[in-house]
Amino acid sequence: MSDKTLKVALLGAGSVGSQVVRLLSEQADDLAARVGARVELAGVAVRNLDSKRDVEIPEHLLTTDADALVAREDVDVVIELIGGIEPARTLILSALKNGASVVTANKALVAADGPALFAAAAEAGRDLYYEAAVAGAIPILRPLRESLAGDRVTRVLGIVNGTTNFILDQMDTHGADFADALAEAQELGYAEADPTADVEGHDAAAKAAILASLAFHTRVNAEDVHCEGITKVTAFDASAAAAMGSVVKLLAIAELSDEQVSVRVHPAMIPLKHPLASVRGAYNAVFVESEAAGQLMFYGPGAGGAPTASAVLGDLVTVLRNRLSGTTGVGESAYADRAVRPMSETVTRYHVAIDVEDRAGVLAAVAQAFADNGVSIKIVRQEGRGDDAQLVVVSHQATDGQLSATVERLRGMDNVRDVTSVMRVEGEAE
Amino acid sequence: MSDKTLKVALLGAGSVGSQVVRLLSEQADDLAARVGARVELAGVAVRNLDSKRDVEIPEHLLTTDADALVAREDVDVVIELIGGIEPARTLILSALKNGASVVTANKALVAADGPALFAAAAEAGRDLYYEAAVAGAIPILRPLRESLAGDRVTRVLGIVNGTTNFILDQMDTHGADFADALAEAQELGYAEADPTADVEGHDAAAKAAILASLAFHTRVNAEDVHCEGITKVTAFDASAAAAMGSVVKLLAIAELSDEQVSVRVHPAMIPLKHPLASVRGAYNAVFVESEAAGQLMFYGPGAGGAPTASAVLGDLVTVLRNRLSGTTGVGESAYADRAVRPMSETVTRYHVAIDVEDRAGVLAAVAQAFADNGVSIKIVRQEGRGDDAQLVVVSHQATDGQLSATVERLRGMDNVRDVTSVMRVEGEAE
Repeated sequence: MSDKTLKVALLGAGSVGSQVVRLLSEQADDLAARVGARVELAGVAVRNLDSKRDVEIPEHLLTTDADALVAREDVDVVIELIGGIEPARTLILSALKNGASVVTANKALVAADGPALFAAAAEAGRDLYYEAAVAGAIPILRPLRESLAGDRVTRVLGIVNGTTNFILDQMDTHGADFADALAEAQELGYAEADPTADVEGHDAAAKAAILASLAFHTRVNAEDVHCEGITKVTAFDASAAAAMGSVVKLLAIAELSDEQVSVRVHPAMIPLKHPLASVRGAYNAVFVESEAAGQLMFYGPGAGGAPTASAVLGDLVTVLRNRLSGTTGVGESAYADRAVRPMSETVTRYHVAIDVEDRAGVLAAVAQAFADNGVSIKIVRQEGRGDDAQLVVVSHQATDGQLSATVERLRGMDNVRDVTSVMRVEGEAE
Repeated sequence: MSDKTLKVALLGAGSVGSQVVRLLSEQADDLAARVGARVELAGVAVRNLDSKRDVEIPEHLLTTDADALVAREDVDVVIELIGGIEPARTLILSALKNGASVVTANKALVAADGPALFAAAAEAGRDLYYEAAVAGAIPILRPLRESLAGDRVTRVLGIVNGTTNFILDQMDTHGADFADALAEAQELGYAEADPTADVEGHDAAAKAAILASLAFHTRVNAEDVHCEGITKVTAFDASAAAAMGSVVKLLAIAELSDEQVSVRVHPAMIPLKHPLASVRGAYNAVFVESEAAGQLMFYGPGAGGAPTASAVLGDLVTVLRNRLSGTTGVGESAYADRAVRPMSETVTRYHVAIDVEDRAGVLAAVAQAFADNGVSIKIVRQEGRGDDAQLVVVSHQATDGQLSATVERLRGMDNVRDVTSVMRVEGEAE
């Protein structure tokens, strides 16, 4: 055990920060044994000194001057839990410059500006760890960066947003429509008053960018991610999925093919027998396919104060150990420098439901629309409904451009009354 | 990129070793980029130079003299894939003494003699990594050791033996009895000709000891593990589980309660809604409960050449990076030094099925047997069968000693014809 006491500064004392303070205190002896030195909270920067908090924080530790806190020379590690781009970015850069290592849960910042932060950490000879930025308590960044470092990851499929997973779950199990399921999620505290970042997929897109960067050793930022949220998912989509033995999930998908990376977030049907299909409610899971390991899945709570704090503390222990031994962990690995494939060239599969006039030749015309776009059909199911018929078509793999052009063509056809559901299909063999 | 070329010696070129050789060659450029230096295979020790192997190994690299290979001064890391206690133990100690770090997949050795090996590594200032020893490709040791280092793990429940999981799966889905399911597993290559280590639970017990040691920062060896295999599980047990909405799995269980550790391997019923229940065939999964993170699960292939090689290579990259930076990773953490609780004092729950004479007073007598041993009953179900009746009793929690004494008492009762199924119940709330 070292005689030195290591000092930690905390930026933000919301639900995660409060739990970090609690664990630092309750687990103090265990942390000391695991780190090899006592760990002390040096200060906590908050917006308002008088806010009510989940845990009591000694008054003399609280400050509203985050800039001064990260500039303190005695601070070994800064934990950033403010979120958002600024002032988090400036504070992290300042902390690194002043010789502190940094642990953050800030997915938006890492996804937007990771390389600049990693470069600052490398220049300072300090660590920048961010396990809590993706999938809350689930250890996924460390396994990707270290456990799978000798393997070749080919695909990552993640349910990385608990809010949308809860909403889709309600739509699946109770036949609710999106608006009602969202209202319920808001009532239960699973969705925020302004749910945009969750339901439009932006939160998942930031995590997808981070996962893709680590999995494929290349720089992917949030803007590289094709992003569709769940606001257009209907109760009909959910029942159409059920009819296929599938369920609709919002997936973060990162794939490597032909040495290019494609990264996207969108709702998709996955078969019920896929391990991700049974990830319910606010849980998260990340499914990883790699050349040697095969199929792995990591499952757990994707958010919440205590789970996220667990991930923060895990990083903290590693970073403090590194401080003691005068070393740093693995920094950014972007050597592969792969191109990001545009969504239109990414290979996917579509499930399309169409209301058509029930007369001879309609199926032939629909099939021709697929054929003309070079899309081969795997399944067609036709159900008569009086004058109308419903056609369900599941395609074989094609580029997203070919598939979306096919849907455009269908929408314009005379004997097609309505394209009632368009959903990508993931997680099954071709 | 360092100018130095790092050298790796391999002991054993069976199914895992062959895949390690393949990956070292096929991923050479990626490994170099991730490690920060070229990695070269210095030699491969085998029992027989002329054996047929899954991959071609250059003849000049093969040797039957493992002692000389680990004594070579130019070797940076020795990968031990021989298995068993000797000569693996002597070779690992020799490698460390000669200044090499070690990566091993040897669960039996680590579970039997871990502390001596870790001490040798610490004395030599070298790493000893063994992710591949538990649950094949699934990253579980690193998450326990590092990701959860700031949390307090309270329970680990694992399906860590693919052979027995395959057999129990056959019994569950096809109503097969143990002997037939074992024969099928042997025919398909999922069970060895001598299946003792798997079906008696010894393999799972070694893994349970390793998991418990890491989870609870205390020394647990294979002999501390209460171990029951699946040879006595019957088709009736499987159907009794199904009737309870459960399934029988061979579980490795490590628990912390009242600051004591209990570690055990036995078949148990778990509810179908538990995430472990859907782990099928030869897959493994480890379910972890911790104070802050909550419930996590890690899932993937638990054995096989390529998956196990993925775990070995992941360790290799970490150990080589440490060599380059002149540091070592986290060594043994046994500071907590907790007592191991005897099985008789471990708290469990039992599901008991009994054939009784169908006459008044039988249920009262059975209930009295539970009460006399201080065991409270949660569910009783009685089904008439002509002169007989079947009673199914599910207990509340009690010590295993109280529960097994109750079963002994039942076996000796006049109006009990037979105790047809005794199975512990795990994975559900009291």
